[in-house]
Amino acid sequence: MYRVRYRAGKIPPHGGRLVNRVVRYRERAERMIQGLPAYELKPQPDPKTGIPIRHVAHEIVSIAYGFLSPLEGFMTRNELESVLKERRLLDGWLWPMPILFDISEEDLKKLGVKEGDQILLTLRGTPFAILDVDEIFKYDPKEIATKTFGTPEAAPGIVQMPFDEKHPGWYQYATMKGTYIGGKITLVNEPVFEEPFSRLWFPPEKSREEMVKRGWRLVIAHQTRNVPHVGHEHLMKFAMLNGDIEPCDAILVNAIIGVKRLGDYVDEAILEGHEAINKAGYITPERHMVTFTLWDMKYGHPVEAVLHAIIRQNMGCTHHMFGRDHAAVGDYYYKYAAFKLWKEGIPGLGFTEPPHETDKGVLIKPVLVREALYCPKCGEIVLTEYWCNHEKLWQKFSGSMIRSLIIEGVEPPSLIMRPEVFQVVMKWWEKLGTPFVNKTYLTSRKLPPFDLKPMEYSPKK
Amino acid sequence: MYRVRYRAGKIPPHGGRLVNRVVRYRERAERMIQGLPAYELKPQPDPKTGIPIRHVAHEIVSIAYGFLSPLEGFMTRNELESVLKERRLLDGWLWPMPILFDISEEDLKKLGVKEGDQILLTLRGTPFAILDVDEIFKYDPKEIATKTFGTPEAAPGIVQMPFDEKHPGWYQYATMKGTYIGGKITLVNEPVFEEPFSRLWFPPEKSREEMVKRGWRLVIAHQTRNVPHVGHEHLMKFAMLNGDIEPCDAILVNAIIGVKRLGDYVDEAILEGHEAINKAGYITPERHMVTFTLWDMKYGHPVEAVLHAIIRQNMGCTHHMFGRDHAAVGDYYYKYAAFKLWKEGIPGLGFTEPPHETDKGVLIKPVLVREALYCPKCGEIVLTEYWCNHEKLWQKFSGSMIRSLIIEGVEPPSLIMRPEVFQVVMKWWEKLGTPFVNKTYLTSRKLPPFDLKPMEYSPKK
Repeated sequence: MYRVRYRAGKIPPHGGRLVNRVVRYRERAERMIQGLPAYELKPQPDPKTGIPIRHVAHEIVSIAYGFLSPLEGFMTRNELESVLKERRLLDGWLWPMPILFDISEEDLKKLGVKEGDQILLTLRGTPFAILDVDEIFKYDPKEIATKTFGTPEAAPGIVQMPFDEKHPGWYQYATMKGTYIGGKITLVNEPVFEEPFSRLWFPPEKSREEMVKRGWRLVIAHQTRNVPHVGHEHLMKFAMLNGDIEPCDAILVNAIIGVKRLGDYVDEAILEGHEAINKAGYITPERHMVTFTLWDMKYGHPVEAVLHAIIRQNMGCTHHMFGRDHAAVGDYYYKYAAFKLWKEGIPGLGFTEPPHETDKGVLIKPVLVREALYCPKCGEIVLTEYWCNHEKLWQKFSGSMIRSLIIEGVEPPSLIMRPEVFQVVMKWWEKLGTPFVNKTYLTSRKLPPFDLKPMEYSPKK
Repeated sequence: MYRVRYRAGKIPPHGGRLVNRVVRYRERAERMIQGLPAYELKPQPDPKTGIPIRHVAHEIVSIAYGFLSPLEGFMTRNELESVLKERRLLDGWLWPMPILFDISEEDLKKLGVKEGDQILLTLRGTPFAILDVDEIFKYDPKEIATKTFGTPEAAPGIVQMPFDEKHPGWYQYATMKGTYIGGKITLVNEPVFEEPFSRLWFPPEKSREEMVKRGWRLVIAHQTRNVPHVGHEHLMKFAMLNGDIEPCDAILVNAIIGVKRLGDYVDEAILEGHEAINKAGYITPERHMVTFTLWDMKYGHPVEAVLHAIIRQNMGCTHHMFGRDHAAVGDYYYKYAAFKLWKEGIPGLGFTEPPHETDKGVLIKPVLVREALYCPKCGEIVLTEYWCNHEKLWQKFSGSMIRSLIIEGVEPPSLIMRPEVFQVVMKWWEKLGTPFVNKTYLTSRKLPPFDLKPMEYSPKK
């Protein structure tokens, strides 16, 4: 009764079926797109600065490859309202947040489509995906944003202050164009990644195959958008010990790759930094695998935790670790809101029960781990609250301290960052001219971070 | 579905009922014993050396206080045969090994008892317990011994060589007197311990109360008969991380106190050594509790693992950690036999299913942890196989190396043994004249390690 009944790579996907809406036969894809009206996808800009804050192409790829199963496309009004009200899809499966295709009235008029039509979505002029126009509807973006993240009134103690423009997730939703197209997505042109993305591209089907091939029974997912310091490494190592009667067989590091914010580590350093952990053997490569998902972080902490659980379950993981301030920014949420979610549910956010204990909920096992710190008296990394009580001596891992060391060109002590990880940061600093995302990087970066092969296409006559 | 449904201190005892056969009212106890034939309990000696290899008083205390629930006394022939054949009591509850009261034909004749009578058991002449003579029977001790521990033929790969006189558990059973009394035990005179035993005496009822009082939901048991080195400490810390969706709230260290072997640490150092871990805060005292059980180790590895699980479930624990060579001596068993037991069962030893997955089995959750080692490249204690792959650099914790350092009076490096623990060893060296059990200690030691208050008693007229 204590053994996890699912096996890594074999755990049912969320909603019961792994979505695959990728047309792999090129000729067929080319036939499908002929004559469709074309719409060029562009990043959603910050209305004030013009800097990209979202690119719908990330969501399209994640839907088509099944990361977001059972979603097959963008939400219709009924789906949106069901998610905002009950955090459920229309067929009852738990779903945490709106997935929307927004479009301006002007562009819609130019396209001249009506419900029942299809649109060819292009990227840099190249055919990319087909969007079925099942429904065109309007909805107040700010209302969507606020209902998605919650309010201090509805969820006291969990939402600590009202969401506003400074919250990047709220801002993404709130600055949408107010008109939406609901309908299925069909990817007709597969993304072509450069290294290091290319070797780490494990969409759900492939990631599941890989887990089965490696003989892993239990795999725990680690969410990241950081170059790993020693504290991150230990949280992974500690969390993997919670399998069932034995530890998890392996850790799946899954980096969220999408829009960036000033001061973030560059994606390449994040991915190769995690690889460095296993290459240098701090976690043996036989039990560690680095992958990524295209997604523009919504920083929705407990709300986003459910999305992460779904994504990693779809990738085949049996366990998912959640820590303090999971996918959080600022002080909008209580720092252990995700713990509350998995332990009791958060009715004030529409999660009436823990997401893994509700009907049509997630199947992945949440693993809650607190902070890892260095204790000089113990002479090691300790887990707050559970292990030693030398609070007065504890040294926290400070991301900003590590950043300031790096900017000065100082190698952080190996107790804080493994030298092999630091070397990766240095390598990408040299290649990209900066260790951290700056304005130049933000404006010059390839977004989405992949190319498409040319594809024959004749527009609507 | 991932939460452990039992709560520490509230988990049902093995067999469903916590046995309590201790008469707490002195007057009543005195009335009960009058006129009974008296039998003085003595240690079971090694026939060759005379050194004690078992004292039945340890089992009497453990039965009476419910450590061995649902046992209420010593086994009858049918019970013994059921345990040897199926590892089950007559009512179907899983039970790993015989619990026997053996007596010589000569003593039996002197006592002049028959089935249906009662015997007053005395210790150093003082009334101690009443034994109901439900059945008097004979059974070949060597057959009991061999059936208890198994054979390479029946359990290939698990039993690696035939058991013999060098195995202390086999030897305990094999040198019993061949005649046994089956029947219930009633303790009429409670043991009086000296410090440090006294403050650490938490029989099941008290230990359960303590867990509830401390508000612990999940508690993991750590079996010990050693002064803890840093490796032991880490195994505990690692194992506690396997709770359900959160780590266990606390660790219950439960030392097995009974007969000793040459070279063992002295009991006082074992107990205070574990206390030193929490006193110095390496594991906060809020999550750590040191206790003991009176029991003469049978070194039955997988067989004994089941007994340990039962004892700690009876004490209120929800989890029990098992490591390499759990309760093992020599190479009789495969070093990960207990892992096999909990993962698949060992049909060749009569455990057709894992003990926690069988009907009328144990409810405690097994947690399997491998070895903790020091890795100089990682700069920390690592868990073999799961974490780093710097095998060539690994430094094992060698108990004998630590012993030889201590004997030389050299303080082991703090990476190996915490200085506060070393101080405890030194303290008891000074008090007892030796840090490790030697012949003088073995022959002069108070066994069982408690006193009894005087009690009025008139023998049979």
